Amino acid sequence: MIPREGTNLDPWYGLYADRTAGLSASEVRALFAVASRPEVVSLAGGMPFVSALPLESIRSSMERVMRDQGARALQYGSGQGTPELREHILEIMALEGVRAGVDDVVVTTGSQQALDLIAKLFLDSGDVVLAESPSYVGAMGIFRSYQAEVSHIAMDADGMIPAALVERIASLRAAGRRIKFLYLIPNFHNPAGVTLSWERRLEIIEIARREGVLIVEDNPYGLLWFDRPAPHAMRSVETDGIVYLGSFSKTLAPGFRIGWALAPHAIREKLVLAAESAILSPSAVNELVVSDYLANADWKGQIDTFRGLYRERRDALIDALEHYLPDLEWTNPNGGFYVWVTLPEGLDAKAMLPRAVKELVAYTPGTAFFADGAGRANLRLSYCYPTPNEIREGIRRLASVVRGEQELLSTFHPTGPVDLVLPAPHVISPPPNLG
Amino acid sequence: MIPREGTNLDPWYGLYADRTAGLSASEVRALFAVASRPEVVSLAGGMPFVSALPLESIRSSMERVMRDQGARALQYGSGQGTPELREHILEIMALEGVRAGVDDVVVTTGSQQALDLIAKLFLDSGDVVLAESPSYVGAMGIFRSYQAEVSHIAMDADGMIPAALVERIASLRAAGRRIKFLYLIPNFHNPAGVTLSWERRLEIIEIARREGVLIVEDNPYGLLWFDRPAPHAMRSVETDGIVYLGSFSKTLAPGFRIGWALAPHAIREKLVLAAESAILSPSAVNELVVSDYLANADWKGQIDTFRGLYRERRDALIDALEHYLPDLEWTNPNGGFYVWVTLPEGLDAKAMLPRAVKELVAYTPGTAFFADGAGRANLRLSYCYPTPNEIREGIRRLASVVRGEQELLSTFHPTGPVDLVLPAPHVISPPPNLG
Repeated sequence: MIPREGTNLDPWYGLYADRTAGLSASEVRALFAVASRPEVVSLAGGMPFVSALPLESIRSSMERVMRDQGARALQYGSGQGTPELREHILEIMALEGVRAGVDDVVVTTGSQQALDLIAKLFLDSGDVVLAESPSYVGAMGIFRSYQAEVSHIAMDADGMIPAALVERIASLRAAGRRIKFLYLIPNFHNPAGVTLSWERRLEIIEIARREGVLIVEDNPYGLLWFDRPAPHAMRSVETDGIVYLGSFSKTLAPGFRIGWALAPHAIREKLVLAAESAILSPSAVNELVVSDYLANADWKGQIDTFRGLYRERRDALIDALEHYLPDLEWTNPNGGFYVWVTLPEGLDAKAMLPRAVKELVAYTPGTAFFADGAGRANLRLSYCYPTPNEIREGIRRLASVVRGEQELLSTFHPTGPVDLVLPAPHVISPPPNLG
Repeated sequence: MIPREGTNLDPWYGLYADRTAGLSASEVRALFAVASRPEVVSLAGGMPFVSALPLESIRSSMERVMRDQGARALQYGSGQGTPELREHILEIMALEGVRAGVDDVVVTTGSQQALDLIAKLFLDSGDVVLAESPSYVGAMGIFRSYQAEVSHIAMDADGMIPAALVERIASLRAAGRRIKFLYLIPNFHNPAGVTLSWERRLEIIEIARREGVLIVEDNPYGLLWFDRPAPHAMRSVETDGIVYLGSFSKTLAPGFRIGWALAPHAIREKLVLAAESAILSPSAVNELVVSDYLANADWKGQIDTFRGLYRERRDALIDALEHYLPDLEWTNPNGGFYVWVTLPEGLDAKAMLPRAVKELVAYTPGTAFFADGAGRANLRLSYCYPTPNEIREGIRRLASVVRGEQELLSTFHPTGPVDLVLPAPHVISPPPNLG
C-alpha cells in the first residue's frame, strides 16, 4: 500500500474509488479541440447563440443588483436558492403547464448539477437507469460516474415507445435488476430532435405509476419551439412521481450556471441537503442578476427572438441536407438545437469524423449518445450556434466527406459494408463549449 | 418493488442509494434559522463581512466584462476554468509560497465543490479519511456522503500531532482499513483556530511520503493573518503528494462561488473530467468578473482591509472572553474566523444552545465538528460577521447563559457532572449563511 512504487505513471493509481473506472476523456475530445478553430464550421456543440441576448439589459440588472443588494449578492446564499428566483422559476414553468409551490424548487449550478445530485441520491453500483435511445451524453456520463447502467428504450418520431418501456421494465425485473428511475427529455430531444407526443406522455406516466418507477423529466429546451408549442410538461399532470429539471442555459445564458429541480417533497428535502453538501449554496450574485433580469427585462420577447433565430437555422440545416445529402435520413425538430442524422449503410460516423474535421466541418458522432456502443451510423448536427450561411457551407463540406466515404466503400468493399464491432465509446464529459 | 405501497411517508423510500443513509439535516438547523433573526448576535456562521468590500470596484469589473466580453461571459466556459483566472490564482498562491503551472489549476464552484470531487474520485464505502480533531463540518458531510469514515487525529496548539498520525496510520492498517487521504486545514483552522507549525508541516509531509498517504490541504483562510503571516503552504515543499484547495470565498466574496484545486497531474486530469460531469463548467461570468477585479482593483489592499477588520473582531472576542468568562479555555487565532472554546466540566454546549438562542446569542456546538460524537464540552465562536460591539454583547449574553448552566448543575448535581452518552450528531449540511 505504498502507491508511489507502483509501475503505473500515476502514483495514486491504486487509491481511486471504484467509480472512477468509467472516467475517461471522450475519444473525440482532441478532435473537438481542433474543431473549435474558427475556420471549422462546428455543428457539434450545444452552445446557445448568446450574442442575440440583450447585453445592455443584463448589464443593467448587474448594476441594479450591486447598487441595491451588493452585500447580499456577494454573500453565501440559501442552499435551496433565493425565494425571488424560485418565484420567477414558477412563472416560467407555468408556461409549460406546471404548477408548483416555491418550496418545491431547488436552484442548482445548471440543471447538470441537479442531475448529478439526483444520481447521487438514487444510484448504487449496478442499478439501472432507463433512458431514451439515444440519450444525452452528459446524463449518461453522470449515471456511469455512480456506477449505474443505462438501459436504452427505443424511440421513434413520437419519442419513447411505451410498449418498449413496459417490456424492458419486465425483463429487467425478471433478471433481478434494480431500476432507479426513467430519464427522459420529452421536448426537442438531445440528440434525437424528436418530441414525445402528448398521448405517450400520459401513457408513460401511467406505466411509471403502475410500476413504481420515478421519472426524471429533463426539459431545457421546452420554450424554444418553432412551429407550435411543445405539449405541456409531464410534470403538469403528475406531481408525486416526477423530478422535473429546468435550466436558464438555453433560454437565457449558460454563463450564469443556473438551473433548477422541482421535486416531490421528500426527495426535495434530500436534494437540498445534497446540494448544500456539494457546493454550500448557488452563486447569489447570479441568482439575483437573473431574478432582476426576469423582473425588469422583456424575457418572453427575448425567448421569442431565440425561437425565430433557431427556427431560421433549423430551416437552413434541413434545406441544406435536402439539397446536398438527399439520400441521408434525418429528424426534423420543432424546437431545440439538434437534428439526428442516419448515414447510408456502411458508413461509420465516428470513423468519418477526422476526415470531416480535415474538411473543416465538425459534428458529434452518434456513438456518444449510447451506452452500449450503438450509433455508428448516426451523427448529431447542432444548428444553434453557426449562422445560416455557415450551416449551409458546413453541410456542403459534410456532403463532400460523405461522398468520399461512399466512394471509398464501393472501391474497397464492392460486395457491401464490413461489419466491424468496435468497443463502446467512453464519452464521459460532454463537450458543451464548442462553437 | 412498488415503493408507493410502503408504510413510510416517502413513496420512494426504498429506492435511495445506500449513501443517503447518512444524509439528514443538522439537529441544530432549526435553531440556526431562529438564530439568523436580527436581534440575535450570531457567533455561529462563517460568513465573511462582505460589506467591507469595494462594491464600486466590483461593479466596474462587471461593467467592463459585459462591455468587452459579454458573449464570452454568458456562454459555457472551459470545464477547467478560464486561463486568465488560473493565471491570477497562481499569483495568489505565490503569496503562500506555492509555485505551479496554469495547467495544474482547476476552477470549481467554491472549494467545497473541489472537496466534493476529490471525495468522489477517491472514496469507496468503508474507506477512511484522516482529519484533524475537530474538523470542518462541511468536509465531514462530504466524506460521509461517499460512505467514508473520518478518523480524527489529535491536535494541540501547534495543530495536528505527528506522532498521533503515525500511530493512527499503523493501527488502521493493522485493522485492514483503507486510508484514502489526510484532510488538513493548516492555517487558522476551522473550527479549532490553531495553525500547524512549520516544523510539523515538514514532519507530516515526510510521514505522508513514507506511508503513501495523499494530503488534501484546504487553505481558505491563509491570507487572512493578523499578527504575522502564516507559514508557507505545505504545497510549497511537496508537489506530487498534495491536492491543494483554495477559495475566493473568504478573501474576496462567497457570492461568486469560485474556488480551485491544484492537483498533481494524474489527479488533476480526473478532476477536470469529474467537474465537467458534475456541472459542465464553472460560471464564466463570475470567472471573468473575478479576473477583471484581480487585474484592476487593489485586491492586496482589500485583503489588508479584511485582515485589519477581522483582527479587531478577534481582539474584541478575546477581550470579552477574558472579561466575562475568564474560567473558560479558548484558542487565540492568528488569523481566520474562529475561536474554539472549552466549557467548564459538566457543561454541554449542544444542550445549552437553545437557552443561548433564547438569550439572543448563537454559536456552533462542538459536536458538529466531530464524526464520533465528541465535542460536547466545546463550542465554536465566529468573529467574522458581527461588529466588535455586537461581539462584546454576544459574549456578555453567553456568559449569563454559562453562569445559569453552572448554577443549575451545582443545584441538581452537587456531587459532580452526570456523564450522559448522547448519540453522535448528524450534521451533514454546514450552515454557512448565518449572520
